[in-house]
Order: sequence, then structure tokens, then C-alpha cells
Amino acid sequence: MTRSIYKKSIAMHKRLRGKIEVIPKAVIKDKKTLSLFYTPGVGAVSSLLGKYPERAREYTIKRNAVAVISDGSAVLGLGNIGPIGALPVMEGKAMIFKSFAGIDAFPLVLNVQDADAIVAAVAAVAPSFGGINLEDIAAPKCFEVETRLREMLDVPVMHDDQHGTAIVVLAGLMNALKVVHKSPRTANIVIIGAGAAGNATAKLLHLYGVKNILVCDRKGILSPARRDLDPHKRALANLTNPRNFSGDLQKALVRSDVVIGVSGPGILDRHDIALMNKRAIVFAMANPIPEIMPDEAIAGGAAVVATGRSDFPNQINNALVFPGVFRGALDNRVNHITDAMKLKAAYAIAKLVAKPTANHIMPSIFDPQLVRAVAKSIRTAHSHL
Amino acid sequence: MTRSIYKKSIAMHKRLRGKIEVIPKAVIKDKKTLSLFYTPGVGAVSSLLGKYPERAREYTIKRNAVAVISDGSAVLGLGNIGPIGALPVMEGKAMIFKSFAGIDAFPLVLNVQDADAIVAAVAAVAPSFGGINLEDIAAPKCFEVETRLREMLDVPVMHDDQHGTAIVVLAGLMNALKVVHKSPRTANIVIIGAGAAGNATAKLLHLYGVKNILVCDRKGILSPARRDLDPHKRALANLTNPRNFSGDLQKALVRSDVVIGVSGPGILDRHDIALMNKRAIVFAMANPIPEIMPDEAIAGGAAVVATGRSDFPNQINNALVFPGVFRGALDNRVNHITDAMKLKAAYAIAKLVAKPTANHIMPSIFDPQLVRAVAKSIRTAHSHL
Repeated sequence: MTRSIYKKSIAMHKRLRGKIEVIPKAVIKDKKTLSLFYTPGVGAVSSLLGKYPERAREYTIKRNAVAVISDGSAVLGLGNIGPIGALPVMEGKAMIFKSFAGIDAFPLVLNVQDADAIVAAVAAVAPSFGGINLEDIAAPKCFEVETRLREMLDVPVMHDDQHGTAIVVLAGLMNALKVVHKSPRTANIVIIGAGAAGNATAKLLHLYGVKNILVCDRKGILSPARRDLDPHKRALANLTNPRNFSGDLQKALVRSDVVIGVSGPGILDRHDIALMNKRAIVFAMANPIPEIMPDEAIAGGAAVVATGRSDFPNQINNALVFPGVFRGALDNRVNHITDAMKLKAAYAIAKLVAKPTANHIMPSIFDPQLVRAVAKSIRTAHSHL
Repeated sequence: MTRSIYKKSIAMHKRLRGKIEVIPKAVIKDKKTLSLFYTPGVGAVSSLLGKYPERAREYTIKRNAVAVISDGSAVLGLGNIGPIGALPVMEGKAMIFKSFAGIDAFPLVLNVQDADAIVAAVAAVAPSFGGINLEDIAAPKCFEVETRLREMLDVPVMHDDQHGTAIVVLAGLMNALKVVHKSPRTANIVIIGAGAAGNATAKLLHLYGVKNILVCDRKGILSPARRDLDPHKRALANLTNPRNFSGDLQKALVRSDVVIGVSGPGILDRHDIALMNKRAIVFAMANPIPEIMPDEAIAGGAAVVATGRSDFPNQINNALVFPGVFRGALDNRVNHITDAMKLKAAYAIAKLVAKPTANHIMPSIFDPQLVRAVAKSIRTAHSHL
């Protein structure tokens, strides 16, 4: 089935040759119209904004424009395939931004991959945009890139692989725990992957009140005892793993209640799932190929299974989050997405499913209430403009 | 009249709040469609392009996307008003690109103004685009920026203020000279302005066969005798001014046949025009306010008057050029716009006016043959893909 989707997708991309287009919002019907949209008329608007650049949102695309930016260093689960490899994904995000939230998003894929150069390029092109969506940038440099840009720019900057994933996973977890009648305070949770998504997810779950989190990288459980951890993984080991466990992924899975894969394709099988407690929750989020296919997870005894994909039940995908987050930030003039807003957004998404069941823990991306519900979470006490 | 255009333009910009939008080329109607446009389907396209980035044009917007990039250092005739001041002009260009040539252009205004940083930013974002239109960047740094980017990138890079202006001025000159029955070989031509436009115009006119060109900057005629010239102006002084004239603008205008203003508002009056030979040609191209208003030029004795504006006869505006140049470059896979192509484009534009008259030396930007005629000029001997 996946193979057939791949074939169809390639054919569709070849037919469209670009999934988005840039169109005028008004017709240039004659010379008079042209003299208003362009010279000489536009000179008056340029003079005005040259003097009062803070009024850009009243007169330009900045009000509603988001840059979708990637260096192609960690594209989906495909790794460092470069900017051109990343471009179809970023175009897809731009489609979603407009289709679901009315946002004018443009994909910018970068020819540079070191943190300094990425920061410089994004900061340089920022004035056209009201928001910056960073995407598919490898850890750990993604942390530095996002932090520096958040400090430099006066528009919201969000690395979606971190915070979009964290928000949507938390929303899914809230509902999945209801389905299996377990509590976030007592559930044992294993996160596979200590990169962008694993890091932000662990932090947001911790903030939400989850007590027992183990994060695993390729070498096993992150614990303060390990000597091979970079500063980000060390901080994560200190934040999680309250009982100082050590060992491999399988050791972590024993007697766990939830496993959240944000790593790579096919690294779990039914025997791994069988190590978990009864009524296990499996979120296999790697894209396009999950850590374990849903039927295999169920064969291992999972009670609730979710993936990042559109073609299985329980799609836990950032696409549920980023359109609403940026809609809210643009409309409410929010320049920094805070932890409190992320928690609110997760609650808002979870609440859209009135009665969660094993095959229905997530709202549909087509839910007409979704974007507005998320957007409402992205506001400060002063967002009443 | 101009004041009323300004007022209307500001009101129109305030109503539209952004003159362009980014829309999907297909409707995301259900989960299945989403799985083709986005994950998991898009993973196959990304994998393919990660391996074969040279095939980007077959599957992505790169085939038809142009970046319209400015640092806001020389916006219209308004000077260094910064990136936000430049944004409405760049949006206007994007509208024109799509309306007249079907090109998906996106405005990127830059938060940096030194040549190194501009080059780095443009090179970093280049992979998304099939062409780079540089715009409203001050001289002399614009020369270095364009030259370096042309060498670095494998897509066409054109600083429109230089080459778009040069092409359209030459086209207008060809027809204006026919109207007044003068020859490019013998006509005395004065160019006011030694910046981006003046430089490129002088060079293209020289290439076309114009013998007697004087270029003036604020201090008068560029001549090898002057000791205050930067390297670009020195080169220009050597290329032009065959009889080594010295003096001010008025001295240059005495017994001249053509004056081409690419400088600033209102620096000529009827008495200046009266210094010129009979049947004088006046191109007053400064935007939004020309060097001299048409009625004033005619009062001074001009036989043919043109401006850059949509609201007077004989609009000599880059908008006649850039849509076709990039349409041709994208369709014919031309990565460097050469001097030969620029000459061809000027001929093509001039030829669209079958019988030039004093009030009709230029084709209309709405001429349905225009873009194709220009696009045909932008091809190499190998452009038969």
C-alpha cells in the first residue's frame, strides 16, 4: 500500500511541478490599476513604511506571511538529504498552511548547514515575514539555531519538529491515557529518540506532570551515569529518569505503559511491545515509515496505536498544530510561543475529541474547529488587539 | 493628480494588506490527498530529489519560482528607506511577474545592507528558486553583489535596476530616434545618473553602437580628468565621453539630442531642455517623481518625452522587460543573461511598435505579444530543450 502511495505521489508531483503558486490578490486590469499597485502609487506606501516600519502589517504581506525554512539536514526520517530533497516537504507544509489556516507560507530551503550561517540567512530574510517556521533541521544544532533566532527577531520563531511534535504528542497522550484508564502521574513513558522531537516532547510532558520518563537514544537509556552525552542529552538525562535506570531500549520498555517513537523506521517489533505493561500505548511517529507498523504493534499487545501518517487511524501529525499556532501568533501579535501556550494548545486539541476510543484519540486535520481552537491558545494576557 | 494616486494607493494597500498570496495548486480534499501531497507520499519525492537534486525542476516550484530581493538601500527614487519600505515595491513586482508572465515570484527584503551579507543571504536561500531578481540595491555595491552571485549560482541572477532599465531604455531610444529622424551613431546622448541604471544603460547603448555618450553625476560630466571617481565611474568615463568633455550638466546638455534621466526627482526644467538640439528626446525615468514632468519638457522644446510611470504616455518601465526575461530564462534553462540577449530583447520590444510616433514609442505592458517576444530573446544556441 505504501509503495502505491509513493508511486502516486511521484506522479502527482511530476504533474503539478510545484504544489503552490504565488498569485496577485487583485487583477491588474489597466494602466490606472498598475499605477496604484506599482509605480508611482506604491512610492507613497514605501515612503510611509520607510518612516514607520512597525506599520508593515497594515500594508504588506508581513501580516499573514510565514517562512517555512529548512537546511535539509534531517528531512522526515530520511536524514541529511539536502535542501532540494527538503523542498517538496516544505511545499507541502505551505499548502497545509494556506488550506487550513489561510496563511501565506513560502518554502525557503537553505544552501548552508552550519548554525551560524543558518541564523544569519534566516535573520537576513526575516523582514518579509510575520513568522518563521523552522523545519527538519538536525539536532543538536536546531536548539542553538532556534534559541538565537528567538532572541534576535521580533516575530515568532518555532522549530516545528520540536514544539509542533511535542504539542501534538501531548494531546494524543492525554486522550490515549483516558482510553486505557491510566494517569500521567503514574504511567511509565519511554521516548525513543533524543533529537529535536524527543527533547521537546520530554520537556513538555514533564511540564504537563508526567513523572516517569525514560528517553533512549541509539545507545540506550539516557542516564546521568553515561559519559558519552552532549550537553543537550545530559540535561535531558537529568530532567527525566528519576530512578537512574541504565540499559538498552528493551530494558526501558519492560513494564512501561507508553512508548513514543520519534526516531527511525522499523526499530520496534511485536516482541518489544510484548515487554510493556498491559493496555500499552504505542505512538510510532517516524515518517514516512514508522518505528513499527500498527498491525505489528497490535500483534504485540498494544491497546492504542498512533502514527504520523494520514493513511492509518490516530494520526499524530504536526499538521494538527502548526497552522493554528501561527494563525494565533499572527492574529494575536504574539512574538514568542511560550510553554504555557504549548500546554494550552495540547489541551485544546485533545478536547476536540469528546469521547476518545482506541481508534479515535485525535481530531481530524479536517475538523473545522481545529485551527481556531489551537489559535485561541496562542495569546498573552495582552493579546486583545 | 499624483497626490490623488498616492492617496488611492495607500487606501488600496490598507484594504488588501498584502498584494499577493500563496495558494495550493490542488485542493487537499481528504486524508488520501494529504498522504500524497505530504507524508508519507512526499517522502518518495524527497528521497528521489535528495539523490538527484538536478531534477528539482521536474517536481518542485523551482521550475517557475523567482525571488525578488532587495536590501531597501535604493528604493525607487526614495533612497535608503530600508527593507520594510522596499516591501510594497517588491510585492508589486511579484504581482506583475504572475499577471504578465505566469511566474511565481516571492518578495524577500533583507535586514542586511553590506555586500558580503547580501551575497551570503541570497546564496543561502537560492535553492528554492529558478531565478533571482535583485532590486533597488544601491550602487556601487550592486555591481559587486550581482557579479559575485552570477558566479556562485547556477540560476540566472539579474539586477533589474541595471539591466531591465538598460534594455527598456534602449528599446525606447530605438523608436524615439526613428520619430525624430536621428541616428544612434551621430546623436549626442546625455545620461544623468551614474548609479546602477546609468552604468548599465551607458554600456548597453555603447554596445548597440551609440558613439557620443556623456554620463553626468551630481558633480557633472564623468571624464578621465576627474580625480573624485570611484573605479566604476572611472571605467564609465573611459567608455564614454570620447572628446573628453568636462563641466556641469548644463554644459553636457548643450547641443545634445537625447537626455536620459535615471537620477532623482525634478532636477531638470524647461530651460535645461531648451539647451538641447531641436527635436530633442527626453527620457525622465526617476520614480515615482521624474526628473522633469512631461508638460514642462515639452514647454522646453522636447519632441519626444517618456517617463517610467503608468499615468503618462511612453512609459519606459522595467515592467516591460523583467517578466519576459525571466520567462525566457526559466523556459529555456538559461543561467546567464548575456549582453547579446539584452540587445535582442531591446530590439524585440522596439519592434512591437510598428509605427512609432511622438506619443507612442513603447508597446503597452498589456500588449499580449510582449512577454513572449522578450522571452524568445533569452536563449542560447543550445536552448532547444
